[in-house]
Amino acid sequence: MTRPDDAVVQFSLVQLDDYGPWTVTPEPRSEPSLQALQSRLYADLADFVGSRDGYVFPSRYDNMIAVSNRISPEEHRRFQELVRNHYPVTASVGVGTGPTPVDALGAATEALQSTGSAQDATRTERLATACDDAPGGSLTVAHFDVVDATEQYTDREHAFDAERRIKRAVVELSDRMRDHGAVTAFVGGDNAIAVCPDLPDGVYDDVLAGVRDAAGVEMRVGVGRGETARAAGQGAKHALERGRDTGEWVTAAPASTDD
Amino acid sequence: MTRPDDAVVQFSLVQLDDYGPWTVTPEPRSEPSLQALQSRLYADLADFVGSRDGYVFPSRYDNMIAVSNRISPEEHRRFQELVRNHYPVTASVGVGTGPTPVDALGAATEALQSTGSAQDATRTERLATACDDAPGGSLTVAHFDVVDATEQYTDREHAFDAERRIKRAVVELSDRMRDHGAVTAFVGGDNAIAVCPDLPDGVYDDVLAGVRDAAGVEMRVGVGRGETARAAGQGAKHALERGRDTGEWVTAAPASTDD
Amino acid sequence: MTRPDDAVVQFSLVQLDDYGPWTVTPEPRSEPSLQALQSRLYADLADFVGSRDGYVFPSRYDNMIAVSNRISPEEHRRFQELVRNHYPVTASVGVGTGPTPVDALGAATEALQSTGSAQDATRTERLATACDDAPGGSLTVAHFDVVDATEQYTDREHAFDAERRIKRAVVELSDRMRDHGAVTAFVGGDNAIAVCPDLPDGVYDDVLAGVRDAAGVEMRVGVGRGETARAAGQGAKHALERGRDTGEWVTAAPASTDD
Amino acid sequence: MTRPDDAVVQFSLVQLDDYGPWTVTPEPRSEPSLQALQSRLYADLADFVGSRDGYVFPSRYDNMIAVSNRISPEEHRRFQELVRNHYPVTASVGVGTGPTPVDALGAATEALQSTGSAQDATRTERLATACDDAPGGSLTVAHFDVVDATEQYTDREHAFDAERRIKRAVVELSDRMRDHGAVTAFVGGDNAIAVCPDLPDGVYDDVLAGVRDAAGVEMRVGVGRGETARAAGQGAKHALERGRDTGEWVTAAPASTDD
Repeated sequence: MTRPDDAVVQFSLVQLDDYGPWTVTPEPRSEPSLQALQSRLYADLADFVGSRDGYVFPSRYDNMIAVSNRISPEEHRRFQELVRNHYPVTASVGVGTGPTPVDALGAATEALQSTGSAQDATRTERLATACDDAPGGSLTVAHFDVVDATEQYTDREHAFDAERRIKRAVVELSDRMRDHGAVTAFVGGDNAIAVCPDLPDGVYDDVLAGVRDAAGVEMRVGVGRGETARAAGQGAKHALERGRDTGEWVTAAPASTDD
Repeated sequence: MTRPDDAVVQFSLVQLDDYGPWTVTPEPRSEPSLQALQSRLYADLADFVGSRDGYVFPSRYDNMIAVSNRISPEEHRRFQELVRNHYPVTASVGVGTGPTPVDALGAATEALQSTGSAQDATRTERLATACDDAPGGSLTVAHFDVVDATEQYTDREHAFDAERRIKRAVVELSDRMRDHGAVTAFVGGDNAIAVCPDLPDGVYDDVLAGVRDAAGVEMRVGVGRGETARAAGQGAKHALERGRDTGEWVTAAPASTDD
Repeated sequence: MTRPDDAVVQFSLVQLDDYGPWTVTPEPRSEPSLQALQSRLYADLADFVGSRDGYVFPSRYDNMIAVSNRISPEEHRRFQELVRNHYPVTASVGVGTGPTPVDALGAATEALQSTGSAQDATRTERLATACDDAPGGSLTVAHFDVVDATEQYTDREHAFDAERRIKRAVVELSDRMRDHGAVTAFVGGDNAIAVCPDLPDGVYDDVLAGVRDAAGVEMRVGVGRGETARAAGQGAKHALERGRDTGEWVTAAPASTDD
Repeated sequence: MTRPDDAVVQFSLVQLDDYGPWTVTPEPRSEPSLQALQSRLYADLADFVGSRDGYVFPSRYDNMIAVSNRISPEEHRRFQELVRNHYPVTASVGVGTGPTPVDALGAATEALQSTGSAQDATRTERLATACDDAPGGSLTVAHFDVVDATEQYTDREHAFDAERRIKRAVVELSDRMRDHGAVTAFVGGDNAIAVCPDLPDGVYDDVLAGVRDAAGVEMRVGVGRGETARAAGQGAKHALERGRDTGEWVTAAPASTDD
């Protein structure tokens, strides 16, 4: 049996090269054009990583995050080729491993930063790794959603107020989960996903209480474990569905290795 | 000459029909697949609206926002057709006008909500309007970015910490700008955009000070005005570029009616 | 009432700038990457033109064709902006009018050719027009499909043989329709679409007989007329559906001005 | 050393389920919408297959072809999942192997046809295989282009006439190459690609002469060999570039196993 602290997770940080300057050269480019480019490039990353059993988060779009356990560093070269041939920009990548998601993403960040500045025009298409250990063992994914969001917010509130409320809740959630080594992201609708170390249920209870107090938003969570983000994430989604039925705030799923 | 308070802005709220249930039927769908779908559908909206001189914000992806001054309500049917023929989901739309962005988006929200719940399986592809006045007069766009973000955060901090910092700053910014009738969004990188009524420079100074205190992030802003989001937004981008050169926190642009 | 020979149709030729050299610089780029880029850029043109009531044909991908009656030459600048901001290539455009599709596309071709070679690295993002008359009057669209294609070919033949058979039929169809001033394209499946002058039914009978003799393929056709490619094309599709029911080879639709 | 006749190539046929009926239900869907859907779905297949070292050809869009040596039949389920979650249609797949491309695609076709009609509404998302041997050994890719196409046709002729000329040449090329066990496709511009058995140079000379006589078009070819379509195809592209320099009609490349 794999003990949780044997787990090694791998994260990738995909950063567009010299993007800020490109957006204003020779003149500022139209904002909706930039929105479209950022979104489609991220969608391509989602398909690339998703079909290899990973997870992706958009982060800041010029910096995107992938949970990349099954994707070798060299395999990332394929994605860089895709970007180079499809878009007017290129991407550099840092890949890192560690015992927790925060550690792994930190290693990926440092590896990437060691290749040069995001706005250094001569730093393009780098691939840097800090992968001391091969990824292995289990990942944990926690999938959060807001209780009764449609009824309470979407169908009732001003769309911008519903958005602010949920995004503030996710900011509060991200900060609290970060304290436990997790990387969290808003994934649309009223959902957020965290990739975490294996945490006791009590931690989720505390985090949910903290979010309720700080942002006035009630969330529930489904937790799943597996050898890939896909497996753990699907387990989390199923657990969340059970939680909707039972009314539980925190629902765990047994470790699953398949979809 | 048009006085600012003659201005009438139009906002559209594009809401995917019955999306939450679709994402878990018959089983929960893979998260990266959902990320890709949400992002590409938003990119299509960006191209549709952008090529008609508007602006778009992703909001929560199942609910997207457009500044749609030059796009008749009936024209939105074209976008709905595009969604129906390209994606496994459909979209309903609310269109509203008002003297401020918050008013206009509020009217759009109420119009849409009047057609039924976001999760009512029988409510599909509605188009509802609350457009008492034809849009006209000037719009104001304020384009914010974080001072020295690359140097201070992107090239130096843990990627997730840089993200949290910037997203918290945008949440604080959004709340403060909302008090002045503005709708604000994170648009990637270290940038945020607000569509506002015409505001005195002092308001921006106060807002930036509030964000600095609440989130520890220093921002600057470029402000532009024009008859479309595109015109106002391009003016704002140019003003921001001037502000980078001069070191000013708040830079306004003369009203511009062209790109 | 508009007499057919008052009709003026507008065609646009969208040509990627210096594309051949780009595909092999600095090294030959991966073929599937090129396939994806070409296809997505064409899809973007389809959405741009389609939402403005036109029709599009992929032609050779580095040269794409649009029926652009409702799209002013200046409006094409929007599409060029989209290409510039989304792709690693740029596009030049020729727009032309004439009494027949072949005339209009010929005028568009000459206008574009006058700006320089497709492989002149200094010729980028040109917009050239040969629009002596504003487009107006009716367009005719003829929508052809192969009789019983699924049963006879798709479900029975080697996929490559079915493909060769249908593509040869479309080459024969294109040559014969060209003699009548029409521009024809394979549009997928077992379908081809021609934009034509207003032709007597007897012409279609002759063309279908010629294709049958030269390629051994039986086709039927639905013909529609309208003020835009969209209107004429939808009329043709409906006519084709009626033809499937009645068994007629040539089915015409009354002139329609709506979708 | 692998003798050419030990080679086993794998082809996949991706067929959209019940597509024809979908395009006209409840009413005929707008043609540009269909063009966009077909093209983007094909682009997604190109990225999926291309990042796994294969090649793709659009064929008839509702039937697409992949050279899939390195992609296990089970792996195709990932692409079907992608289609299901991104598009309003689903896809069935046949995978087949054989000593020649025509044999392999024939096996794939028959496997797919055995699951039911392309227009049987109950036949969805099937995966059928006829893979008696695991793919291995070398593939040969022949990359053809038209001599001086830009100068002679693109910059000089009516765009539609240039298109007809090149497409007729590719039809003639496809028929001749098929006699040698090859599957050929137009890939845009003035280029065509064939996946073939290992053929003596004299065959290419004869084929090119045949195309010249039948279509009046002069082509050259670069030939490459490798363990994947990617490797063979890149070799062919490099050979073609050398042929442009030397003026040779037929240029072969040494077997290459890297990109």
